[in-house]
Amino acid sequence: MQRAKLLEGRVVAAGLHQRTKARVAELRRRGVEPAVTFFRVGEDPASELYVRMKEKRAKDLGILSEVIAMPSSTTERELLTRLEEKNRDSRIHGILVQMPLPRQIRTEAVCQTIDPSKDIDGFHPINAGKLLLGDPSGFPPCTPAGICEIFRHYGLVTAGAEVVILGRSNIVGKPLAALLLAKGPQGDASVTVLHSQSRHIPEHCRRADFLIAALGKAEFVRGDMIKAGAVVVDVGVTRLLDSSLPGESRIVGDVHFSEACQVAGWLTPNPGGVGPMTIAMLLANTVKAAERSAGCGAD
Amino acid sequence: MQRAKLLEGRVVAAGLHQRTKARVAELRRRGVEPAVTFFRVGEDPASELYVRMKEKRAKDLGILSEVIAMPSSTTERELLTRLEEKNRDSRIHGILVQMPLPRQIRTEAVCQTIDPSKDIDGFHPINAGKLLLGDPSGFPPCTPAGICEIFRHYGLVTAGAEVVILGRSNIVGKPLAALLLAKGPQGDASVTVLHSQSRHIPEHCRRADFLIAALGKAEFVRGDMIKAGAVVVDVGVTRLLDSSLPGESRIVGDVHFSEACQVAGWLTPNPGGVGPMTIAMLLANTVKAAERSAGCGAD
Repeated sequence: MQRAKLLEGRVVAAGLHQRTKARVAELRRRGVEPAVTFFRVGEDPASELYVRMKEKRAKDLGILSEVIAMPSSTTERELLTRLEEKNRDSRIHGILVQMPLPRQIRTEAVCQTIDPSKDIDGFHPINAGKLLLGDPSGFPPCTPAGICEIFRHYGLVTAGAEVVILGRSNIVGKPLAALLLAKGPQGDASVTVLHSQSRHIPEHCRRADFLIAALGKAEFVRGDMIKAGAVVVDVGVTRLLDSSLPGESRIVGDVHFSEACQVAGWLTPNPGGVGPMTIAMLLANTVKAAERSAGCGAD
Repeated sequence: MQRAKLLEGRVVAAGLHQRTKARVAELRRRGVEPAVTFFRVGEDPASELYVRMKEKRAKDLGILSEVIAMPSSTTERELLTRLEEKNRDSRIHGILVQMPLPRQIRTEAVCQTIDPSKDIDGFHPINAGKLLLGDPSGFPPCTPAGICEIFRHYGLVTAGAEVVILGRSNIVGKPLAALLLAKGPQGDASVTVLHSQSRHIPEHCRRADFLIAALGKAEFVRGDMIKAGAVVVDVGVTRLLDSSLPGESRIVGDVHFSEACQVAGWLTPNPGGVGPMTIAMLLANTVKAAERSAGCGAD
């Protein structure tokens, strides 16, 4: 019985954090204090938790951070005005608005208002466009970039491989497809994107050398949908009520872990797989933004 | 023996030109004169021909057009300065720079300088990003948009279908993938993008309900690579020397036409397929830009 090797995002993220920390130290030596602003609108407990985690990690790395918490009654104009202030503030290198937003605020309007050079989430259309066009001067979205970083860490080469992506969201499926289609050894894959309207999904999955599940459907990918030895990445997060423990819930991914373990060659645990990479890429993007604004850094 | 029905881009383009002409007339009634500027740099005879064709067609439709021809020694700065003038000129609604450009001018710099609201070619990163994100407020590139218009004209529905795109260029393969992945009956396809680094290309092609060849490899798609009844679109243009007629050359596409004809359900002729749609979409985009700047029109 085969046993998949784990793609430990937590370990890859820790390594990336070390490199980010060293870049922060180098910036400080040059008199630059990398700084990020997190916006949170409303009282969603999950959003509060996510922002707190990001803030804590930023502090650990020596990045200055501030949280601007606004009430759920905030108007779109009020939020955009605060964003524009931070766009103009040259001491701030990165800006993030925690999603989801209250109904009265259009996500698109928010993404288009953040200065693209401070858009560490990579959600501005100009950054999405640079990604599609293969122009490396933008910021790629953090989850897809984190998945590519996991592949790089473990020496998994996508060039010429069959990649199947389940899900066509703007934050995972579509930008990941663009990254893996780009020219170069970290891309160069044959990429198929499937979604809720797709047919023959199991057959597609079975031919995948790399299978990325980002649908948000609990345990959708079963063992018999995986090619022996494939690389399987689970991006999904679904909270299920546990029938054996009333009132309790558990988090499951889009991949049936115990079945996948017996077929896949490589598999992300969930949690501890893709999740930690997202914050790691976010803070790496913040430092990249600070380096660019200071006219130093690798790119 | 099956005989594929032809997807006559020339006919679809003629219908689109009629609708564009009616929109031009409506704009003129409101006192708006739709106007486009074509830039041409250097003396490439093919570029001269293309610009002349676009200019003539614009005139036919009642769109004011001007050609700015610059010598092959033009510097990037000189071209960008002229573009910036046209960006500021509120009488001009659309700007196109004929590609390819002389070596000393970076295509990226040119695409990023054109005002996105006048970018009728859809090459600005912000328009590419809106396309990827499914935001309809941008301009899609003309060749992919023209292919989708052919499908619409003939009632060919991509929703749920298997689409295989050969080629990952910024002007055809990647933007077409984004269009066909978007939500809605004109998209919603399962999309695979293949390219020079891909393996198993014939097997992929044989499962395609829609096969789009945009590789630039003469007669690459043979009859035995096509699923019976499939929709086959030939975007390629290669000039081959004709060995039977010394000094003569002929244009061939990426699809072996006579073989494909016996297997496909629908097939674009080449020439007369995708080519005429590109100019038709370009001038439709010009009128869309004029309508938006005048605050009227359908979107």
